[in-house]
Parts: sequence; structure tokens; C-alpha cells
Amino acid sequence: MIQKSFYLIACMKLLMEILEREIKDFKERVFPDKICFTPIGIIHSSFKELKGMPIQYSQSLSEGILEIFPNYQDGLKDLNGFSHLICLYHFDMVKLPVPLQSKPFLDNKVHGVFAIRTPFRPNPIGYSVFKIMKIRKNEILVRNIDVLDKTPLLDIKPYIPEFDVVEANKVGWIKNKSS
Amino acid sequence: MIQKSFYLIACMKLLMEILEREIKDFKERVFPDKICFTPIGIIHSSFKELKGMPIQYSQSLSEGILEIFPNYQDGLKDLNGFSHLICLYHFDMVKLPVPLQSKPFLDNKVHGVFAIRTPFRPNPIGYSVFKIMKIRKNEILVRNIDVLDKTPLLDIKPYIPEFDVVEANKVGWIKNKSS
Repeated sequence: MIQKSFYLIACMKLLMEILEREIKDFKERVFPDKICFTPIGIIHSSFKELKGMPIQYSQSLSEGILEIFPNYQDGLKDLNGFSHLICLYHFDMVKLPVPLQSKPFLDNKVHGVFAIRTPFRPNPIGYSVFKIMKIRKNEILVRNIDVLDKTPLLDIKPYIPEFDVVEANKVGWIKNKSS
Repeated sequence: MIQKSFYLIACMKLLMEILEREIKDFKERVFPDKICFTPIGIIHSSFKELKGMPIQYSQSLSEGILEIFPNYQDGLKDLNGFSHLICLYHFDMVKLPVPLQSKPFLDNKVHGVFAIRTPFRPNPIGYSVFKIMKIRKNEILVRNIDVLDKTPLLDIKPYIPEFDVVEANKVGWIKNKSS
């Protein structure tokens, strides 16, 4: 009985330690003026300039390499079991501020920046889904690249159709225009 | 003929000006140590603590409000034509550094952070797809919220099935575990 209690207390202490390590104190939560990230790697592609780049990853068959910096390499364990990954990156060539409304590639009417997929966004974060071809050490060979060479890489997540395939039935201005 | 040339030159000048305004000079491109963003709004939800939160947006029927700060409101034009949006946000309660490998909710084995969907990531950027219920001025009422109340909002993009529905045929460790 005593042994069981000790075990329970030890478990709870460990849990508290884990929670404390991972989560900030709610009392100290302040809404931030700015949020900073550190690149986890660099994207290598054949696109050295904007000219000739694919508009969307879904329309690209180009291959490229996501080079993960060595100190993050352990984070790739078991990613090779997935066929596709979600890639978040920084459109680092975009000059701020950007216009809040503009014409997208696929239309000649002006739309809000949050209703189009332009790289010229208030926070120029790119989102692409790439097919995983091969992972070797800290390098991921991917297909469907629509990213400029030497683009800073922010995050990689596994693409999981059960989560990420959404039945969207309204596509606004892009209807009948995307292909 | 002269008139035509003038017109052409004026057009090209305008184009150069637009390009120069939007894109940085390649010669000045330096790989960044850190990348900073400014929140464009705040996410309001009923989740005041981590306890009881949905693991994934696809498993949530909760509603919440994306409050866009007034200076970005013009960017929402025509978003109301879409049924779903992609939301990028900052997991601001995550303490850094995070472990590079850990057990996800759905498994009892350790996987790399880039092969799981945990919020505890080197760059804690959240990705969710929400159903748009109503847009009024600078507020978007959405469904499928899986985000802590008062979370800083980074970007909104329209969800476009033709781009974003990917035929992924391998889901690694998560196979037969996600439901």
C-alpha cells in the first residue's frame, strides 16, 4: 500500500515536471507584438528567380531538397513512413508592407489578401504539400516544389488525409478559374 | 507609332516599380538567423486551458471567432465566398526548446517531432482548417476550433480543394490509429 502511494506520488511529480517544462505559466501570458522563429533548415530548388516558377505546388512536378539543419535531424524519425509532408516556410524575398487587396494570378479582379494565395502577405508564410521521395540523414528529397531556391524552412508536419482532406463546397472567386 | 512606344515604356516602368516595391534585391539576400512576424489578429475560443481541448480541428465541432485587427480588415474582401479557410497561428504557450522526439496522443511509441502533429515543435506554428460560418466586419465566426482562447493569429488563406486535397497513400505510424 505504501509502495503504491510512493509510486503514485513519483508519477505525479514526473507529470508536473513534464507539464512545467513544456507549458508556460498562464499568469505570465502576454499578447505579443511580434513573434520570432528560427529556421530549421533551407529549401533547395531549381528556381533561382521568380520567373518561370509554378504558381502552386499542386501544379509542379519539380523536385527539390529540404535540408534540415543537423541539430534538428532527430526530429525526422519515422517521417519516412508518410507519402506527403506539409511544409511551412518564409517567403523571404517579399518586401513589407504588402497591399491588402490585389489581383491574383488566376483572376483580373481585386480580392483581399486573405482570400488569395499570393506570397505577398502581411506575414509571408508559405504553405505547400510535397511528396516525400527519399529521406537520407538530414535531407528530404521531395516532389511538387513551388519554392524559390534557398528559402528558409520553418516547419514540417506529416500530411494526414483523415485530418487534412476537407470537404469544402465553396471556392469563391476561384470557381471555374483554377484549371 | 511614337505614342505606342511611349505607352510601352510607361507600362514597363510601372511594372518595374511594382516589382521593385514587392521584391527584395537578390544581391542583398542573406539567410536569416531569425524570422519575425506581427500577429494579424487574435483567436477567441471556449478553450481556456489545455484540459479538454480537441486533439485535431477535424475532430472538433466547437465554434470560435477569428478577430482580425482593424488595420488588416480590408484583406478579408471576398473570403466570404469560400466555405473553409486555412489558419496559421502561434502556439504561444509552448516553452522552448522542445524535445525532438516524443510520444503523440495517438501512439505509445516515440516519433520525431516532424512526423507528429504535436504543438510542441521547434517553431510552434499551428495549422488548422476551419469552416467559415459568417464574416462580419473584422470578425470571422468559424467552426472546428481546436485552439486555445487568445491565441495569436498569423495568417489566413482560402482552402482550395483543387490545390489542397492531396492523394496521400502512406500515413506511417498513424495507420489504423487515428480514429
